[in-house]
This record gives sequence, structure tokens and C-alpha cells, in this order.
Amino acid sequence: MSKSNVAIIGGGNIADKNHIPALKQVAEQVDIVAVCGRDRAKARALADKHAIPHAFDNTGELYRVCAPDMVVICTPNNLHYPQTIEALEHGCHVFCEKPSALHARDARHMADLAAQKGLTLAYNFQLRQTGECELLMRCKAEGLLGDIYHIKAQFLRRRGIPGWGSFTNKAVQGGGALMDLGVHVLDLALYVLGFPTPDQVLGNTYDLIGKTGGKGLMGSWNPATFDVEDAAMAYLSFPNKASVMLSASFALNTQLDKDRNLAVFGSKGGVSLFPFTLHTELAGELADVRFPYLEDVDSQLKNTIAFLDACQHKPSNVCTAEQGALLQEIVERIYQSAER
Amino acid sequence: MSKSNVAIIGGGNIADKNHIPALKQVAEQVDIVAVCGRDRAKARALADKHAIPHAFDNTGELYRVCAPDMVVICTPNNLHYPQTIEALEHGCHVFCEKPSALHARDARHMADLAAQKGLTLAYNFQLRQTGECELLMRCKAEGLLGDIYHIKAQFLRRRGIPGWGSFTNKAVQGGGALMDLGVHVLDLALYVLGFPTPDQVLGNTYDLIGKTGGKGLMGSWNPATFDVEDAAMAYLSFPNKASVMLSASFALNTQLDKDRNLAVFGSKGGVSLFPFTLHTELAGELADVRFPYLEDVDSQLKNTIAFLDACQHKPSNVCTAEQGALLQEIVERIYQSAER
Amino acid sequence: MSKSNVAIIGGGNIADKNHIPALKQVAEQVDIVAVCGRDRAKARALADKHAIPHAFDNTGELYRVCAPDMVVICTPNNLHYPQTIEALEHGCHVFCEKPSALHARDARHMADLAAQKGLTLAYNFQLRQTGECELLMRCKAEGLLGDIYHIKAQFLRRRGIPGWGSFTNKAVQGGGALMDLGVHVLDLALYVLGFPTPDQVLGNTYDLIGKTGGKGLMGSWNPATFDVEDAAMAYLSFPNKASVMLSASFALNTQLDKDRNLAVFGSKGGVSLFPFTLHTELAGELADVRFPYLEDVDSQLKNTIAFLDACQHKPSNVCTAEQGALLQEIVERIYQSAER
Amino acid sequence: MSKSNVAIIGGGNIADKNHIPALKQVAEQVDIVAVCGRDRAKARALADKHAIPHAFDNTGELYRVCAPDMVVICTPNNLHYPQTIEALEHGCHVFCEKPSALHARDARHMADLAAQKGLTLAYNFQLRQTGECELLMRCKAEGLLGDIYHIKAQFLRRRGIPGWGSFTNKAVQGGGALMDLGVHVLDLALYVLGFPTPDQVLGNTYDLIGKTGGKGLMGSWNPATFDVEDAAMAYLSFPNKASVMLSASFALNTQLDKDRNLAVFGSKGGVSLFPFTLHTELAGELADVRFPYLEDVDSQLKNTIAFLDACQHKPSNVCTAEQGALLQEIVERIYQSAER
Amino acid sequence: MSKSNVAIIGGGNIADKNHIPALKQVAEQVDIVAVCGRDRAKARALADKHAIPHAFDNTGELYRVCAPDMVVICTPNNLHYPQTIEALEHGCHVFCEKPSALHARDARHMADLAAQKGLTLAYNFQLRQTGECELLMRCKAEGLLGDIYHIKAQFLRRRGIPGWGSFTNKAVQGGGALMDLGVHVLDLALYVLGFPTPDQVLGNTYDLIGKTGGKGLMGSWNPATFDVEDAAMAYLSFPNKASVMLSASFALNTQLDKDRNLAVFGSKGGVSLFPFTLHTELAGELADVRFPYLEDVDSQLKNTIAFLDACQHKPSNVCTAEQGALLQEIVERIYQSAER
Amino acid sequence: MSKSNVAIIGGGNIADKNHIPALKQVAEQVDIVAVCGRDRAKARALADKHAIPHAFDNTGELYRVCAPDMVVICTPNNLHYPQTIEALEHGCHVFCEKPSALHARDARHMADLAAQKGLTLAYNFQLRQTGECELLMRCKAEGLLGDIYHIKAQFLRRRGIPGWGSFTNKAVQGGGALMDLGVHVLDLALYVLGFPTPDQVLGNTYDLIGKTGGKGLMGSWNPATFDVEDAAMAYLSFPNKASVMLSASFALNTQLDKDRNLAVFGSKGGVSLFPFTLHTELAGELADVRFPYLEDVDSQLKNTIAFLDACQHKPSNVCTAEQGALLQEIVERIYQSAER
Repeated sequence: MSKSNVAIIGGGNIADKNHIPALKQVAEQVDIVAVCGRDRAKARALADKHAIPHAFDNTGELYRVCAPDMVVICTPNNLHYPQTIEALEHGCHVFCEKPSALHARDARHMADLAAQKGLTLAYNFQLRQTGECELLMRCKAEGLLGDIYHIKAQFLRRRGIPGWGSFTNKAVQGGGALMDLGVHVLDLALYVLGFPTPDQVLGNTYDLIGKTGGKGLMGSWNPATFDVEDAAMAYLSFPNKASVMLSASFALNTQLDKDRNLAVFGSKGGVSLFPFTLHTELAGELADVRFPYLEDVDSQLKNTIAFLDACQHKPSNVCTAEQGALLQEIVERIYQSAER
Repeated sequence: MSKSNVAIIGGGNIADKNHIPALKQVAEQVDIVAVCGRDRAKARALADKHAIPHAFDNTGELYRVCAPDMVVICTPNNLHYPQTIEALEHGCHVFCEKPSALHARDARHMADLAAQKGLTLAYNFQLRQTGECELLMRCKAEGLLGDIYHIKAQFLRRRGIPGWGSFTNKAVQGGGALMDLGVHVLDLALYVLGFPTPDQVLGNTYDLIGKTGGKGLMGSWNPATFDVEDAAMAYLSFPNKASVMLSASFALNTQLDKDRNLAVFGSKGGVSLFPFTLHTELAGELADVRFPYLEDVDSQLKNTIAFLDACQHKPSNVCTAEQGALLQEIVERIYQSAER
Repeated sequence: MSKSNVAIIGGGNIADKNHIPALKQVAEQVDIVAVCGRDRAKARALADKHAIPHAFDNTGELYRVCAPDMVVICTPNNLHYPQTIEALEHGCHVFCEKPSALHARDARHMADLAAQKGLTLAYNFQLRQTGECELLMRCKAEGLLGDIYHIKAQFLRRRGIPGWGSFTNKAVQGGGALMDLGVHVLDLALYVLGFPTPDQVLGNTYDLIGKTGGKGLMGSWNPATFDVEDAAMAYLSFPNKASVMLSASFALNTQLDKDRNLAVFGSKGGVSLFPFTLHTELAGELADVRFPYLEDVDSQLKNTIAFLDACQHKPSNVCTAEQGALLQEIVERIYQSAER
Repeated sequence: MSKSNVAIIGGGNIADKNHIPALKQVAEQVDIVAVCGRDRAKARALADKHAIPHAFDNTGELYRVCAPDMVVICTPNNLHYPQTIEALEHGCHVFCEKPSALHARDARHMADLAAQKGLTLAYNFQLRQTGECELLMRCKAEGLLGDIYHIKAQFLRRRGIPGWGSFTNKAVQGGGALMDLGVHVLDLALYVLGFPTPDQVLGNTYDLIGKTGGKGLMGSWNPATFDVEDAAMAYLSFPNKASVMLSASFALNTQLDKDRNLAVFGSKGGVSLFPFTLHTELAGELADVRFPYLEDVDSQLKNTIAFLDACQHKPSNVCTAEQGALLQEIVERIYQSAER
Repeated sequence: MSKSNVAIIGGGNIADKNHIPALKQVAEQVDIVAVCGRDRAKARALADKHAIPHAFDNTGELYRVCAPDMVVICTPNNLHYPQTIEALEHGCHVFCEKPSALHARDARHMADLAAQKGLTLAYNFQLRQTGECELLMRCKAEGLLGDIYHIKAQFLRRRGIPGWGSFTNKAVQGGGALMDLGVHVLDLALYVLGFPTPDQVLGNTYDLIGKTGGKGLMGSWNPATFDVEDAAMAYLSFPNKASVMLSASFALNTQLDKDRNLAVFGSKGGVSLFPFTLHTELAGELADVRFPYLEDVDSQLKNTIAFLDACQHKPSNVCTAEQGALLQEIVERIYQSAER
Repeated sequence: MSKSNVAIIGGGNIADKNHIPALKQVAEQVDIVAVCGRDRAKARALADKHAIPHAFDNTGELYRVCAPDMVVICTPNNLHYPQTIEALEHGCHVFCEKPSALHARDARHMADLAAQKGLTLAYNFQLRQTGECELLMRCKAEGLLGDIYHIKAQFLRRRGIPGWGSFTNKAVQGGGALMDLGVHVLDLALYVLGFPTPDQVLGNTYDLIGKTGGKGLMGSWNPATFDVEDAAMAYLSFPNKASVMLSASFALNTQLDKDRNLAVFGSKGGVSLFPFTLHTELAGELADVRFPYLEDVDSQLKNTIAFLDACQHKPSNVCTAEQGALLQEIVERIYQSAER
């Protein structure tokens, strides 16, 4: 197969530290032809750093000059929708950062357009590619878990309201802890369950700490302009009676600085994901299984490869446009429930 | 005040190990005058063991012969309702084992009748009396927690389906893990929140392990006759937007044999109950507080005293008839949600 | 089946604390009719303590008066042979303490005579009945270990030369650490391997600490009269190329006070017995399995029942006369190797 | 003394990472004049990296051009013999990687020729130079151990079959875990004992995991071409009755990834080497001694210096030609025992 | 030797739990003939419990009726002086509870009178008899510590102000934490140093917590009547330049509930007493030595035997009258320094 | 404010690693204009490394050429006095390394001259700037400690006699462990107490290990020329009855390699500084508080800023000339007490 031209839209940290390094490791498949950022000089500097030929400050020029085969979108959340639509309209495959969009109807539109155009649209939920998640899927496939009926998914920070970026700005981000953190473990939970649509969604959001202020562990934030949730709690129930408890926080009076985990309960076995432990019966006795030599993997690289595989219609476990739309629909139902 | 005559209805373990010993420690307030059990000989033996004068095998005879001032009801769940009604009709204060009744409407009837008769009806939720729960309430009262907005309540056993009694028989118990275990931590959660009524309840129940069988840690159970839930998960939301995640299990593929805890999250501090830790800010820094010399208390004795205090219209934190009725209504709403 | 009469030969601790209590728990199968000890008064006292009718100070009288169906022999090692022969000649099944005899030829004779008489002769190697050993055999049966090819068996004490009894007297005991301790884990190793006969045996014995003296953790011993080995090391190789490393000590300059273990290595999994851990591959990853809820069992009771089962030709895993003879032959080969 | 010219034969990792850096640290004693490898270009690159003047792809040219005083041989095992003989014939001192040779008779020939030529031949068993081994020898010298009578020596990997090099190729390596790993701890054991010749050797080798395949922790190996032992177990007995249990594995179903240790048992004290602990009696009590500030040492540098000392007839604890020959003879006796 | 008659003066807990049980274990040497307490009925009950013939409520009657050879004085501190003088005047050996007296001049008088009468007066500082203290003295005797030049001695409780007895009453006790607790470790420190007289004493006492009140871990105390020190700190310097830092507290805002220890620093080794560790150099390396199998001993029994040995002029390490007087003099100098 | 010119006097490690890097981080306030060292070439090299214009080997030239506003003095202890006097005479603010001077009278003179000249003289006790010390002062300010009445201050090394520099030379250093290490924690103790003057000082110094030799953990020292104390112990008492126990050592037979800590005891709470824990009562219970997310701070940078603030008469917690003089007076009183 011939190599594809890929353009990077968004010239921040995620481009610099995640996507570009991963793409450079698959240089036999792709050429990075351009970086497009808000600030042309910064885009130029990033391009130079990575030996990328072009740098732009508007996507119109990008498409005109480079006509890329693919784009990677790593801009703030509120741009995911218009930039994806534009890219699809230009016939590009799109690898978009999470979450898919600010609104469920936009995410649905993105998925429909990609399908209509026959293009690949995928989202960068890279926790799927961790060694732990892979082992979980292998345990499930080998029947070690039996029927999975309950999942506790959480991504909790004690005082991790970011003191930089637009994380506390609802107009840009669309939300707070749920939109930024919760969606990661929600994706994992649905991935394990096979992406069913919940028939019941109930949730609440909170902002007392965010609006009051206090000691910050990820820089200092401004309580006066804080207008997103600092914590979100939700319960999902599915037609097959499986259920998910979802907890996400930027700030919560809990012990750990960062507590990201999935506890998966099945009829034959249960798994706690980080660190990975399996609780089951073996030889007629209750058994706890640890896997002491699980390897660290480069989950971003693996997800980038999964996206490229999807573009070529190879088997891939990347988060699809449909899945991204369902995730956003659930997030929106949680917010609606919280505002009831 | 003159001493009260108390009769024990139900001649099993709970009478022998919990209620009678506690009542004997407050002998300056009460005389235990009778034990009434299904089997007269066993009731007689229990009475003799504790130097109690009378033993009966029917409550009619009990009321006729002894005319007690109070009764303690520690029979199977399905008898709580009729025996409480009967006792109230005989003008007795009633200290009834949890849960209040098989059906919410019965629990409501019990509370209404007690109110109408001017008698005390209380339920034996003794976890309220633990040193940990007391300290939690003191922390709340001193403002160390701020506004409480979320609670994770759980009472999980890994393979603790009881191999004795009628714990797996729905007709007698009214349910499984939720009815027997979950209700304890549900009571604690509501107690901490001030017993508000939830406006939203969503839940699910499961029975895959119970109906399949396996290794038991509390004796062996019969999967063929198992007809209760082995696990229940629920989410409650309250008018003030506070929320509770409730998890209860007789059997679940998790690590710990027994995992009973409440995690309480407030705007100023959070508490994990067993063991007790407080997570807050102090002197401008994130602080974890431990209380290394918290004393073990005899929570049954304290709850018995709380009941006696209630009977005399003294301040008391015993679970009231109204609270018991609300708990049962929530349990019923969870079961209904699970069957939707 | 009708009840059997059993007589206890040997009135010491092992009778009082192990065999008699176990036999009393199977009172529906056996009546203990007599105790026979060296000292009639002590035998009488022991009999009275356990409500046993007869007490003797010589076996002749015992057989004459009581004609037991079975005897349990718990006398010093040097009496196992003559008393077993006598018992078999009187038509009794025999449950004999380990080890079988001072010499391999005696143990062989005992086995042959039992076979010829159609009587059950068994030895009390009760470690086979521990929950750990049972789980090991279940793991093996379920194929979790694959082919077993190497075992490290050890029973090491740091300074556990007994300060009482005749443990340091070769004429009575036949040997030291190997005869008293090593034989227990040797039995386990052979039991796991299916009791093959080794084709190669190499070993050494030592007595430097025993003959020098020092701090004792099981009382004080007399170095001047110490004439057994304080440590024995041996290597066994079997026709199928499996091998066993055996280590036993009364005294050794090692860390632990008592270190009793079996490490079993198979092509699919390996087990360390005390505490039980399984090391294998699961779902394509290296896995360590722990069984946190393994129950403590009364291994003496289970071995007594196994002996009674053997007497009735039921399936039984008690150590047979043949196995006891093979164990003694191996012990003797180790001693011979050490003296080469 | 004048400086010596040293040539490196073998241009792989061991040369690059171990020998050349060590030699450069003693630049006041030696000049590295040449590297000789199979592939001239790679030899040249290695020489350039370390500023070494010459690079060759055949030893004939090396000796012709450079006439070195010493050579360091770090080629695969099967070349140790011919290259050492060649070097000795050219009048060079030889520092050869372990093991000495594929066959005991070759190792003997090497030692005899060195003696005859008056040249130093030594082997690079660098564990002798660790701080732990030094402290062990000091403890022995100060009498803290008394008479040493038993050693357990082990070098076990759980799944450490190397996925590179020729480690699984018998023709090149002469064997597997015993030849590559076991020989290291065998050297230590004999070093501690004073290098006596055993009068009894019994052993077994295994290859079930190696020939079946599975998860690898040091890369992936090919079970189809695997023809060495994945594990070896052996027992050595010496004329003074001391004994050694030796265990080595590339792959074994055990807990630790890497378990390399020596447990040394003496009449007054015992030592476990990694980490170092001493178990003895002190002031009349059983004492465990730890040495919390034992320094890490550069054992390769120390062994290189020991070799240079030996060349100058200074006191040296490097592994001599005679010791290397005895080690190989023992290895061969173990293999022969395993094949009996 | 003929048996001695011993009388117990003081009928409280110390008599019942410590002295009488110890004396009964040396019944071959002494007969307990009487108990004398403030309350005749309680003294009678205690005597009956231990099968002691006589019970009195005044010492005059005791001496008249029983004429004991020895007395054990276990009354409150303020009675030690008059009762000891009385006993010596009646020709009795005296075993007196610590501390010796309320005032140094009284303790001096007691020692002088005993010397003049040729009678044994000893004090019950039983920490000297612990296995740890014995091992410390053995280490010192074997030269493992070299010259001892500094000791940190502490007996600290976090909130251990006793809620019973007269521990907070200065008139009865003579002082608080120093008099009750500090004196124990002061005795140990001087015992290790060989009981030299300090040439410099500096100290301070505190009572802020005791006079304020708070949570108690040994019952509740009354801050209003609390008139002793809750903590005392002192520094002693000796003519040979050795020094002791002494810390004692009933209440201190420290971590441990009870922290009783001696850290002894010598030129060759240092010891931390509870638990016992030795820090020294061994084989040229810094070594930490632990004694994992140190036995628990009955220190009261050993001290009682030491007293009896002293009465018979056998070697004894019991605290002598002279030592008791010196201890009291130091305590008094600390109090004087604190009040300067 | 305009920028100040600062000169560095002393061209060693402390200049290179501590002071110069800190000053470069506040380049908006100061220009480093010169380095002055004993050896002009080394001074030049250091200046070049940090891009500092001038380098000198005598202070006369320095003042003549550069006329700095401030100097930082980081020469050996015996030069602090003359160089500070010289700098003040030249009208410079002075930031001097600890301790202030060899003699108390010199330190007093330094403070008086600075006051007279209206210049800032400060000492670099940077432990005050650690996050732990800051939190301690905040706890004190918020009343969490109540009245502070006792401090245990220690800076102990097990075998940390420096093998370099002049640390064991009394003529240069003025003393050993007390002068180099003890003074740090003495400063902290006084800082916490508000810098009162003690009315009683008692102390001792030791040198047995230093003069004997042994294993070193900070290089090797020469016992023959060792003429300072290897350990110092002291007790301070203040007019308000507060007390300090001070322990410092280069070498002591204790467990830890380095044990630097302050334990502060107040009427409401106590703090152990490294790591920081607070022991107090909360909600009526004894509470232990940990601060798990205390940040590491650059204490040198903070102390440099504190010095600059002091020069500008801003609030500052840098150690003042007066405080430095008092510290030296206490050190001198300890040495005098030790020599009494």
C-alpha cells in the first residue's frame, strides 16, 4: 500500500507529545505533511521540531495546499465538530481526540457523514490499548469471567482541577470531570460490555469545591470563573440488566490523588483493572490471580496503528464514529438527568 | 422511673447472643419476663439459660399471662409485620429487628399504628451506634465535612451466602443481599443525610452465582432453591441533588470476603468509615486524618439503651418507625426498578 | 457396619492429644476399649481422662482381655516393628505412627505379614490431609501442573532439637532430623509423584551443632549424648527422570525457626505448598494464584477416618504398608549413602 | 611495570559493555590495541566507538599485525577452546569468558598448556567480586561461620529463555541453563569451599517448557529449535562430607523472575548471600545480622584487575585455569548423570 | 535453708497480681503468712483467695501475731517510708515497691537503718529482669558495646493519665510521670552505667494537658484536682562525662500510646532496648543485629527471686537500698531544677 | 527598585551548587558580578561556568574593582568573621554561610557592626524554608499546637564523618558535629520558639569513634588528626520553662544513616517534622494527621529571596545577625559545659 499524507490540526501538547511521536513510529505508512494551529509561529516551531514541511494557521489553506489523506484533530473540544465535518467534506479520514463533540446531535452528524462518505472517523480513547485492558478482553474471550453484569468505573482526582488550559470553561469544554475524565472509563466500560445502549441513565453533577477554591495539585484554578462540574456520579442500566456505576472528579475529598479504575463483575470471575487482579474459583477454591509481569505498552502508538488499520478496513479496536456518538449521547443524558 | 417488663419474641441466635445479653446489662431498667419461640422446648431452654421466668410457643398466651410493657421481635422477616401489629394492639412498645417488613405498605401501617397508639416502635439498625458512625456524626456536627453531597455505601460479601436459616428463601426473607445486608448501609447513608426521601431510584438485582453454586465461605447453599438476589446495585438521588450509590452482595467476584463501608463526600471533608479516615484540608494543606485509638463499643447495648430512651421520650438516635418505613419504601423502589 | 473395638498402644502425648480425640469424634464407628502403656498408673490415668474402660502395662494382657479389632501404635520408633507384628498376629488392623520401623527389612516384613493376613496396616503421615495437600492433588488432577519433574522438600528447624523424649537417641529413634521430620515431607513428595521407587539416592548427614550445643528453641539438649544427625540432605532421582531435593534439620544456621515446605515444579504450573501459591500461565500471561480462603482442617481426624476407610476397603489416601516400607527403604539408602 | 597490549576477541555486547569499559578504567596498565570480530565492519565500528586502533575479522591477522601481550576472549562458548589454545600458542595471557569450554577434556588441555607455557589463563566469573561475596569470605576468614558443610546454590529464571543469541543452541553453547547460569553459582559454591573435587555427582536436566513454548520475559524463543536444558538440578558430595545442592533454570514455574542466591551453612553461622544476611549466635542468643550499608561494587572492573594481578603473579582471586577445568568437569559429570 | 515467713503489706492490685503469685511460685523458700490492708474485709478476701492464713488492717497487730521474717510493701508511695522503717525496726527484710520514698532524705534514712540492722532492703524495679535488659548486660559484659557514653531513656504515654488510684495526687504520690514512670527507665540507665552519681542535673516539668483535660486512654481524670507533672524532661551528666537524657510523660502530643525505651550508645556498639537491636561493626561492615527468638520472661518472679537471693547474701541484681536512695536523690534534684 | 551587584566570596561547592544557581533564578533583582576564591584559576573557571564577569583571589581587589552592593560568603568557618567585617566596612549587605563565627564574641561584633552600619547581615540556615518548617509555623500560627513547651532536636549520622574538606579540623571549623549539623536543628528549635535566650545550658561532647576509626559512609577519615567532637548532646532550658534536647553526631552507633528531625510538643498538638505528622485531638478523639501531598521546595532559592527581602526591609524570615549571634553563644555555652 502507498503511504498516506496526514495533517495535524491543533498545535498543542497532545500533538507534540502523543500524536506526532506515534505517527513518526509508523513512518512506513504515513508522512506528516502539515501542522495547523491557531498561532502560525507556534505551529511553525512545532513543525520544525518534528521536521514536518508545512505549518498553517487556518484549515482552509491547509486543505488547499496539502490535500491530506487523513487529519488528526487535537484541538479544544468545541472545535472537534466543525473541524471533523470540514475534514470529511474534504475527503479525509479523521482521527479525533476525545470527546467526540459538545453535543450528541453533532456527534451523530459526524458519524452519519463519515458513513455516507465512506471515510473512517475514529476517536482517541487510548486506555483500550493498555496491557491491562487487553488482558481483560482476553480473559473475557476465554470465558474466565462468565456473563458480565456489573461494572464500577471511576476516574477520580482529589484536587486535580487543571490550573492551565480551558478545563474549567464550559463554553469550550462542554463540561468538566465527566467530559474530560469520566468519558475515558465510560468508554472502557462500554467496550467491555460490547457497546450496548443503556435504557436507563441517572446522574448528578457537583461544583462545590471548584467554586470555593482550595489547595490544588495540578496548579491553581480560579473559583470565580469555574463553571463546569468538579464531580459527576451516574448509574446506567442496560436492556440485559447489566449496570454501570460511573464516578468522575476533578476534585473530591477522597484519599488518593488519582484513582482510575474499572471493577468488572461477571458470573465466573471479576477483574480489578489497575492494577490487574482476577478473582475467581480455581480447582474448587476461591482464587486471586495476579499477573506480575504484565508489560507496559505504548498505548498511544497502539491506538494510532488501530486507527490506520481501520482506514484500511483491517480488524481494529479503535473507537468508531458510532461508538463515539453513543458515548456522547450517554454523557448528554447524564447531564440532562443532573439538571432535571 | 419504675422498671419495665420486656418479652422476647423469637428464640434464635439474635435473641440469645444480642438482645438478651444487652437487656441484662440494663437490668436496673427492665425485667425480661418471657421468651416466646416457635418451639416451646427450645424457648424454655433459652429462658432457663438466661434465668427468664416464662417461655411460650404462641404470642397469645404470652400477652395473656405476662402483659409485657415492651416486646423485642427477633423472628424471621415475614413475621415482623403481624407480630408488631399484635404487640402494638396489646399496648406494647416494640423493638423490632431489621428490616421493618416485607412490604413498604406494611411498614407504613406499622408506623401509623404506633403513632396512633402513642407507642414507641423502633428498629435495630445497630451500625449507627458504632464508634465510627458516632465520630462521623460528630465530624459532621463540627462542620468538618461541609455540605455532604455524595455517599458510596456498600456491604459486599464474596461468597457469603448463608448456608443456614432462610436467607435464600424469598417468601420468608422478602429478598436477598439488599434486604439482609444492603439495608444496613442504606440506613447509615440516610442517617448521615438526615433521612431525606429520594426523588429518583434506579437499581438492578442479580442471581447468577446464587443459582449456579460454588464454594461457600458461610456454609453451603442449595442453588436449586435459591430464589433471592445475590447482589443488588442501586442509585438514589435526592431533591437537594445529593446522591447515594448502594452496592450489596451475598456473592460477588471481588477480592475481600467482607467489604462493608461508607464513603461520605462533603464540600470540606470526606470520610471513609471502616476504618475511619478523614480527608480534608488543614493549615492550607491536603490532610489525611486517622484516629488510632478509636474504641470498640458494644453497639447492641447502645442501641438497646437508645430504644429505652425513646420509650421514655428522651433524646435517642434509634431508628424510628418513620425511618424504618422510609427505608422499606426505598428497598421496594429498588426492587421495582430492577424488575421494570 | 458394626462398630470396631480399638486399643491404643502407647500412653504418651500423641495418644492423648492426637489419636484418642480423633477416634472420639468417630464414635459411631469405633469404641476405644483400652490403653496400654509402659506405666500402668499413667495408662490408667489417661484411660480415665478419656473414659476408656481398660488400662494395661503389657500387650499380652491387652490382647487376652480385650481382643481388639484394631490397634493404634504410638510408642517410640523402636517398638513399631515388634508391636505391629504382634498385633497382626492377633488379627488386628494396625494404625501405626510414623516412621514405619528402624530398618527397611522390618518395614518390609510388616507389609508382607499384613498382606498375608488380609489386614490393614497404615501409617499416620497426616500432612497428606492438610487443605494445602488436598488442593495440590486437585490441581494436579485438573492438569494445572502438567508433568511434575522436580520437587524441593524441606522440613528445617533452626534450633529445634527437642529437649525432651528420646529424639537425640539413635538406639530408640533410629536417626534424627531425617527420621523425625524429613520423612514427613518425603512422604508428601512421593505421594505427589505417585510413589515411584528412586533409582538413585545420594545424601549426607551432619551433627556439628547437635554435638557442640547452643541456644535451644525447644528446650535444652545434652550435646554429650547426642548421637543422631542434626541435619540431613539428600537427592533422589527416579526412572522417569523426576528428581527430589530433600532437606531436614533439627538445627541449622538458617533464618526461620521452622521452615516446612514443598515446592513442586511441573511443565504447566508450579506450587509452593505452605502457604499455597500456584505459578502458571493464564490467558497467555504469567500468573500467580493465591487461595486466600483455604480452610484449616483437622488433619489428624481426616487421617484417622482415612485409616478406618482403608480397613473397610473404601477408597482411602492413608499411607499404606507398602508405601511405609518404601519410605523406610529410601531413608535407609540415604543413611547408607551418608556413611559411604 | 610497562604497559601491556591487550586485544579483544569477540565484538559483541560483552566486549562493548563489560570488558572494554573495565579495561579503559585501568588505562595506566593496559592499552587496548585491537578488536577482532566475525564481521569486520562491526568490529571496526566497535573499535571506533572506544578509540581502539585496530579492527580485524580473523585472529591470524590480529596476531600478525599486533602481537598482543594479552587477549580477552568473549566469543560464543564453542570458540573458547580453539581461540584460547591459539592465543597461548602466540604467547598471550588469556582472560576468557565463562564457561571454559564445551568439554572437560578441552578445559583440561587449556589449563595444561597455560601451565606449560608459564602464561596466565583465567575465566571471568565476576560474581566472586561482588560486595556480598567479599563479605562472605571475610566472615569465613574471621571464623563467624565455623565449618561449612552445606550449600544451596541456585540461579533460577521463571521465563528467562533468551530470545536472542545462541543460548538455545546446544552445538554452540554446549548446554542451557546449567552452562549459562548454573556455572556462576557453582563457581561461588566451590570458591567458598576452597575448590575441592566432589566424589559424588548426581543430576538431572529438563526441557519441557523450552520445547513447548510460552510467554517469555527475555524475548521470545523458538520451541522447535530449542535443544538445550531449560532446567538442571544436581547434588554434589565432597570427600569431607560437605554437600552442594545446585539448581539452575532458564524456565521454571516458580515465583520470582530471577532468583540467584547462595545459602551457606556452617557450624557457627549461616549466610544467605543476596541480600546478605548472617544467622548465628551472639551473646548466647540466636542472632540475625544485616549489613544495611553494603556498597555496590563494579564487579567486572574488580575481576579485570584480578586478572591483571594474576598475570603479574600478585595475589589474586580470579578464577584460575585449574578451577575453570574443575568446574567444567563437574558440569560434564552432571550432564552424564542426567543422561544415565 | 529453712523457709521464711513473709507478710504482704498493702492489699491492692500489685499484691494480688504481682507479688503474691510470684511468691507462690517459690513456695519451697517462703510461706506467705499474712496480708495487711487498709480495709480488713478486703484484706481477708485477698488472703482467702490465695490461701493465706492471716489478714490484718494494721501493722502493729501483724507484727505482734505473725512476727514475719520478711515483708513486701506494696502500699501507696507516701507509706513506703514509715512502713519500711517500722519493718526494719521489727527485724524484717523488706521488699518495697518503687519508688523508695517521697523524699531523698527518707530514702537515705531507710538505707542507713537497713545497713545498721544488717537487714536487706530492696526495691521492685523489675524491668532489670526483662530478657532485653539481661541481653544488654551480657552484650556489655562481652565488650560488644565498648565504653558507654550516652543514654536516651524514655517512658512516654500519649494520654495515659490513670483515671483511678491516686496517680494525680501529689500529696500521696510525691509527683507524676517522673515518679511513676520515669523512675523505671532512670533505674535502667543507672544500672547499665554502674550506678554512678551525676554531677550535673537539669530538668523541667509540665502540666498543661493534665490541667486542661481531654481524651483519656487509661480512663478519665479530673483536671481540677490534677496537681502533679504530666511530663518531665531531664539531663544528667556524670563525672566520666557520660550523659543521660530522660523523658517521661503521662500525657504528651506524640504518636505512640506507650513508648518505653532505652537507647544506649557505646564506642563499639549501640543498643535500642525495646525491641532489642544492636548496631555495631562486624567483619568490617556496619551491622544491625536482631535477636528474633528472645524469650518473654516473668520479670516479677525473677525479681522476687533476686530479692530472696539478696536476703541470703547470694549474688543478686535486685535494686539495693543504696541504689534506691540514689534514684530518689536524682528525682529530687530534677524536681528542684524544674522549680528553680 | 534597581538591580544590586552581588559578589561571591568562596569558590567551592556551596557557591557552585547552592548560592549561584539560586541567585541566577532571581536575575531580575541581582547581577552576580564576581567570584573570589583562594585559587584564581579555579575562581575563573567557576565564573566562566556561570557567565560571571570577574574572578579574583583576594577580596581587596574585589572591592576595589567591583564595589559590590552585597556579598555572599561561603568560605570555611574561620573566615566568616574577618570577611564579614571587611564586607560591612565596604558598605555591603552580607549573606553568610552558617555558622556565624568560631566565637560568640565575634558573632556579636558582626551583628553590632551591621546594626551600626544599617546593613543587612544574614545567615544561610535554609531548613527554615522547607515545606515542613513552613507548615509547622502555619500550624503554630493557627493555634493547632497551643503552647509549645518541649522540643527534641536531632541531626544524627551513623558513620558520616566527612572524608573530605576540613570537617575534622578544629582550628578551621571550630568544632565537629555540633558546629556543622547540630546548629541547623538548633536554629529550627529556636525559630519555632521565637528565639528566646536559654537561662540554663548543659551539654557533653564525645570523640571515641572519631579517634578510633572504622567504616565510613561519607568517605574515610583519619583518626590520627581527628580533633573535633563526633557527637554532642545538650539540654537547654528557657525562662518560660520550655526546654530543648539537642543531639548531633557525625558518628554514633544508631540505626539510621541520617536522622534529622524536630519533635515539637505543645499543649494542643505535637509535630514530628521529617516526615511531617501532627498529633492532636480532633472532634474529641486523638488524631494523627498526615499531609500526603506536601511539596518539595527549593529551600536555597527561598532563603536567598528571604535575604534579598531583608535587604529591602520587606518582611523576611531569614536568620538575622542577632539570631546568628545568639546561636553561636548557645553553641559556645554547650562547649563550655562539656569542658567544665
